[in-house]
Amino acid sequence: MSDKFRRLQTLLGEIADFSAASSLLHWDQQTYMPPGGAEARAMQISTLQKTVHQRFTSDEIGRLLDDLEKELAGADYDSFEASLVRVTRREYTRLRKIPAELVARLAKATALGHMAWEKARETSDFAVFQPHLEEIVDLTVQKAEALGYQDRIYDALLDEFEPEMKTAQVEALFEEMKEGLIPLVRAIADRQGAVDDAFLRQEFDEDKQWEFGIEVITRLGFDFQRGRQDTAAHPFTTSFSTGDVRLTTRLFRNNLLPALFGSIHEAGHGMYEQGIDRSLERTPLCNGASLSVHESQSRMWENIVGRSRGFWAFWLPRLQEYFPQLEGVSLDAFYRAINRVEPSFIRVEADEVTYNLHIFLRFEVENLLVEGKVRVADLPELWNAKMEEYLGIRPGNDAEGVLQDVHWSGGMIGYFPTYSLGNLLAAQFYNRAVADHPDIPAQIEKGEFGTLLQWMREKIHKEGAKYTPTELVERVTGGPMRTEPFLTYIREKYAQIYGF
Amino acid sequence: MSDKFRRLQTLLGEIADFSAASSLLHWDQQTYMPPGGAEARAMQISTLQKTVHQRFTSDEIGRLLDDLEKELAGADYDSFEASLVRVTRREYTRLRKIPAELVARLAKATALGHMAWEKARETSDFAVFQPHLEEIVDLTVQKAEALGYQDRIYDALLDEFEPEMKTAQVEALFEEMKEGLIPLVRAIADRQGAVDDAFLRQEFDEDKQWEFGIEVITRLGFDFQRGRQDTAAHPFTTSFSTGDVRLTTRLFRNNLLPALFGSIHEAGHGMYEQGIDRSLERTPLCNGASLSVHESQSRMWENIVGRSRGFWAFWLPRLQEYFPQLEGVSLDAFYRAINRVEPSFIRVEADEVTYNLHIFLRFEVENLLVEGKVRVADLPELWNAKMEEYLGIRPGNDAEGVLQDVHWSGGMIGYFPTYSLGNLLAAQFYNRAVADHPDIPAQIEKGEFGTLLQWMREKIHKEGAKYTPTELVERVTGGPMRTEPFLTYIREKYAQIYGF
Repeated sequence: MSDKFRRLQTLLGEIADFSAASSLLHWDQQTYMPPGGAEARAMQISTLQKTVHQRFTSDEIGRLLDDLEKELAGADYDSFEASLVRVTRREYTRLRKIPAELVARLAKATALGHMAWEKARETSDFAVFQPHLEEIVDLTVQKAEALGYQDRIYDALLDEFEPEMKTAQVEALFEEMKEGLIPLVRAIADRQGAVDDAFLRQEFDEDKQWEFGIEVITRLGFDFQRGRQDTAAHPFTTSFSTGDVRLTTRLFRNNLLPALFGSIHEAGHGMYEQGIDRSLERTPLCNGASLSVHESQSRMWENIVGRSRGFWAFWLPRLQEYFPQLEGVSLDAFYRAINRVEPSFIRVEADEVTYNLHIFLRFEVENLLVEGKVRVADLPELWNAKMEEYLGIRPGNDAEGVLQDVHWSGGMIGYFPTYSLGNLLAAQFYNRAVADHPDIPAQIEKGEFGTLLQWMREKIHKEGAKYTPTELVERVTGGPMRTEPFLTYIREKYAQIYGF
Repeated sequence: MSDKFRRLQTLLGEIADFSAASSLLHWDQQTYMPPGGAEARAMQISTLQKTVHQRFTSDEIGRLLDDLEKELAGADYDSFEASLVRVTRREYTRLRKIPAELVARLAKATALGHMAWEKARETSDFAVFQPHLEEIVDLTVQKAEALGYQDRIYDALLDEFEPEMKTAQVEALFEEMKEGLIPLVRAIADRQGAVDDAFLRQEFDEDKQWEFGIEVITRLGFDFQRGRQDTAAHPFTTSFSTGDVRLTTRLFRNNLLPALFGSIHEAGHGMYEQGIDRSLERTPLCNGASLSVHESQSRMWENIVGRSRGFWAFWLPRLQEYFPQLEGVSLDAFYRAINRVEPSFIRVEADEVTYNLHIFLRFEVENLLVEGKVRVADLPELWNAKMEEYLGIRPGNDAEGVLQDVHWSGGMIGYFPTYSLGNLLAAQFYNRAVADHPDIPAQIEKGEFGTLLQWMREKIHKEGAKYTPTELVERVTGGPMRTEPFLTYIREKYAQIYGF
C-alpha cells in the first residue's frame, strides 16, 4: 500500500472516530442524558458534525483521491483499495458541492426545528413548527440545487440516502406496489372482524417483555458481546464500531407487540452492522450499502421471519411460559392476531400491508414540497386529504397527522421512500436465501436462524458499503430491485389469513 | 467584548465540545460499553484527545492570548475576560512545552500500560506491568524535564493536578499530618475491639441500597435533573456540562458502606460541578480549581458530614426502614461502626484516619521514582516495606500492594497527594462555613443541608477554575492550606470514639 493510501486511511480513520463520538453523543441523548444536558449536547453534536464535514471535504482528501485514482487505475473493482477510493470519492464529490455556509445554516435550522417540532407535536399545533419547516424546506431546496440533478430536484435529495436511485424509479416501483396493495387493503377492509387480537390487549409485565425480547434476538444472532439494548422514546439502532452496536426499544405495559417486534426490527439493523467485515472499520465502507438495504434487514427479520407462522411455532410456547395469560391462545390465533391489518394514523404502528401507503403519501408530499407545488402552510390539509384517499381515515389532529414523524425537523427529506424499498428488498433477499437453502423455513420452525443469518452475512453484511444498492442487488439477486416478490409474499400471506 | 476575545471563546468552546465528547466516550466505556467496543473506543478517545491537545496548543490561540493580554492589561483580575485569558495562558504555556511526539508516545504507552496493568492486577503479577511502567516513568520524566522546574522534578508533575503547589510544601504538610496521625493510629491499634461493626456484614438488598443512596444524595442537593448515577467497577464522577454531571457507584450485597459512602463522595464532586457558574460553560474556567479543591468537596460530604453522628441522627431511622435487620442498632453503635479504624491494604477501602498513610507512601514512592532513586523493578519490595512502616501490615501479594491503583498505568504521577490535601481543605472549608453559620451542625441533624451547600456554592463552586487553589483558599479561609483544622477534627472525633 502506498504512503498516500495510508495517509487517506489515517484521515478517514480520524473522521470515523469523530463520527462515532458524535453517534455516541446522540445515543446518550436518546437514552440516558438528564434533561439539563440538552443545550450543551446540541453544541457538542454540532461541533463534532461540523468537524466531520470540514475534514471530509478538505483539499488534502481531494488531492489524495486525485492521486490515488491514478495510482489505482486498473485495480480490481472489488478490492479494498479501489472500493475505498471509489466510495470516498462519491461522498467527497457530493459533500463538496454543499457550501459550508449552507451546512451551518441547515444545522442551525434543524436544531431549532427539532425543538419546535417536539413542542408542536406535543400540543398538536402545526403553527409552532410551520416557520421552521418553511426554512428547512427552503434550505433543503438550496442544498438540492447545489448538489445538482438531471431530471427531478428530489433526485439530489434521495441520493443521500439511496445512492444513485432516481425519483422516477421510485415512482414506477410505488405505482406497481399501489396496484397490488390498494385492492388488498380494500379486500381486507371488507373482512374486518375476521381477525381477533383482543388477547394482545392485556397487561404484560415490562421486565418479562424485556427478557423475552432479549432471548429472541439473542437466538436470532444478535451478539451481546458486541452490542447492547436500551430503552428510548423513539427506537433506533446506532453503532460505534462493528464490535459495539446499540439497539433501543420501548415497552408498553398493555401491548406486547411494540417492544417485541421493535426489538426484532432493530436487531435486524444491528446484525447488519455487526456483520460488516472488520477490515472495513474506521472507513466510509463500514456502513450499510444504503438505507433501503439496511431496512431490508430489519423488515425481513421483523416481518417475513418474525411475523411468520413458522417462527411462532417455535416461540409461542416459550412466550406462554413468560406470559401464562396467553396459555389458551392457539398458534393460528396468535399468528393471525399479530398480522391483523387495519388502517391507522401512525406510520410506525402500521401493519405490514398499510405501512407502505403511509410511505407513498410522504414521498408524494415531499416531492410537491421541494418542487414548490405546495406550500408548507397547506401541508396539514394535504396530509389529511391523502390519508383519506389512501387509507380511508382522517386524522383528528396534526399530532397524529403531519406532525408525527421526526424526519423533516432534522432536514431528512428524501429518506421516507427507503422504508418501502426496504420491504421490496427484504422479500427479494429472503426468497434468494430460501432458493439457496430450501430448508430455511423448516429451520425457522425449529428456532434455528443461523443459515439465514449466515447467508445475509456472506452476501450482504460483510460487504459494508463497497457496492451501490443497485450493484449489490444485482450481485445478490441477479437482477434489479422489483416489486413482484414482495407483492406475491404479501398477497399470499394475507389471502390465507383473511380467507379470500 | 472584542472580536479577538470572541474568537478565543469560539475556539475554546469547540475544544470544550471535543473534551466533553471524549469524557462521554470514557464514561460510556466504564458504564455501558459492551466488551467488543474496547478496541475501537481506545482509538476514538485517542483521536479526540489528540485533537483537544492540537487545538489548545495552536499558534492561533497563542497569538490571541498575546493580543488579549495587551488588550486586557489593567482589567479587573476577577472579571470573566481577565480570568479566561489568564487561565488559558497558564494551560497553554504548560501544554506547549510538551512536544507533540512525546504526547503521542505517552498516549500509546498509557493505552498499552492500562491493559497490561489490568492483566497484572488480575493475576497479581507485577512482571506483566513492569516494562510498561518503566516506559511510562521514563516518558513522564521526559515530560517533567520538558515542562521544567526550579526545585524538584516532581513539581513539574504536581502542577498539572494542583496548579502552583510545590513538592516541598506538600512534604511540609505531610510531615505535620504524620506527626498527628501516626500516634493516633497507634493509640487506636491499642484499643482494637473497642468498635464493633459486625452488623454491617449482613446481606443488604442491592436495589434498596441503590434507592437509599439516591434518596440521601438527592437530599444533600445533587440535582438529578442535571445529572444521574450509574454503576461502574471503579467509581468516578464526570461531567459534560454543568447541566449533565454523571456519578458512578458500586454495590456489594454483603457490605452497605461502599455504595453509600461512595455515592455521597461522588455526589460531593458532582455538586461542585453542578455549582459552577453557567457563564463559565465551554471554557477552561468550567472546571474545579484543582484536584485537592475537588477532593475537599467529596471528602467533606463523605466524611465530615456523612460520617458524623448528627448526620445519622437523621438518616439512621430512615435506613432502618429500608433495612429492618438494622432495627436494633443504636445511633451510637452505628456511628462507631462506620468510623471503625483498621489498617488495611487497599487505599480506596481505607478509613478516614489511615487513608492518609496510603497517600504518604505513594507520594514518597513517586518522588523516588521520578528522581531516579528507585528502580521500577524494586517497587513491590519498597511498597511492602513502607506498608509495614506506616501501617504495620504487609501485603500478601502485589494485587493488594503496588498494583492496586490505576493511576500510574494512565501516566498520572503527581496525582495522589491531592487526595490528602483534599482532606485538609475539607476541614478548613467546613470550619469556615460553620463559623459563618453556626447552626449548620444542628441543621444536619434535621436532614437539612441547604445552608452548607449554598455556602460552598457561593464561596467555591460558582468560581470554577478562575482562581488557583492558593488564591481560592486565601479568599475563602483568609490564609493558606494548613493541617491544624483537619488534625483537630480527626483527633477529637477518634478520641471520643475510641475513648482516650
